[in-house]
Amino acid sequence: MNKYMKEAFKEAKKAYEKLEVPVGAVIVKDGKIVARAHNLRESKNSSLAHAEILCIKKACKKFNTWRLEGMEMYVTLEPCPMCAGALIQSRLDKVYYGAIDSKNGAVSSVCEILKNNFTHKVEYEYLEDCPECSQIITDFFKQLRKQKKFNENNSYFA
Amino acid sequence: MNKYMKEAFKEAKKAYEKLEVPVGAVIVKDGKIVARAHNLRESKNSSLAHAEILCIKKACKKFNTWRLEGMEMYVTLEPCPMCAGALIQSRLDKVYYGAIDSKNGAVSSVCEILKNNFTHKVEYEYLEDCPECSQIITDFFKQLRKQKKFNENNSYFA
Repeated sequence: MNKYMKEAFKEAKKAYEKLEVPVGAVIVKDGKIVARAHNLRESKNSSLAHAEILCIKKACKKFNTWRLEGMEMYVTLEPCPMCAGALIQSRLDKVYYGAIDSKNGAVSSVCEILKNNFTHKVEYEYLEDCPECSQIITDFFKQLRKQKKFNENNSYFA
Repeated sequence: MNKYMKEAFKEAKKAYEKLEVPVGAVIVKDGKIVARAHNLRESKNSSLAHAEILCIKKACKKFNTWRLEGMEMYVTLEPCPMCAGALIQSRLDKVYYGAIDSKNGAVSSVCEILKNNFTHKVEYEYLEDCPECSQIITDFFKQLRKQKKFNENNSYFA
């Protein structure tokens, strides 16, 4: 597994421990990790608290700018439309993701947002050599089903 | 102009006064406005600080949930991909917008994100009877050009 994806995966494991869907992300600039975060949607009771959004928020704060040009993101799961859109808005150079999200992925699954001609173009690459990234999500939902932590709409709640 | 769009427009005017691209939004539940916000990207130095995102954040906080089912958003400008995605993630019922964004709009312009089969479907409607919503943006950029507040990439900075 790529060394940056390994760090994103560590973040995903932190989410798992908090009973959050295990997704983690890091932002890299000049070979160094400048921001890291994991999904906290349930803990924060916020639809915006995906790993990518929290990571972008930290990077914007750190550099005191909304322009994250020259930076790349590594995230364990294919971004949803909100997060793929946030990559565009933040002007990140590229996103690498370690697992496919066939239900909510907006990069190569349900749609391909980053292929559109928005005012900024974000490159993307699916890294296939990190099956741990999808495995941890499979394990997470298996555990939830055992504990019957689903509501009537089959939607996860902690 | 629809009474809720009028309130969103009031928010857009607040953004204008702060030298922010003038976009405003409100969230309505059972006929009442439960959250309102305007674009603060420059003031907050955050790519995430669009009117829609800030409005969703407030509603999530108010109701202590990330599920905004039964609520609708009125926003003066067609949502970008990030904001359109945030509507999906928040499970809002419907979005009404008052102006078309041909460069960054992700509902009916550059792409049509909400037409995809994500796990939640958000209805949408362009309200054509509020030309003020696009006029304020035209006026804003006209004023900026006069004041030469653009950088070398022709990107606005305050």
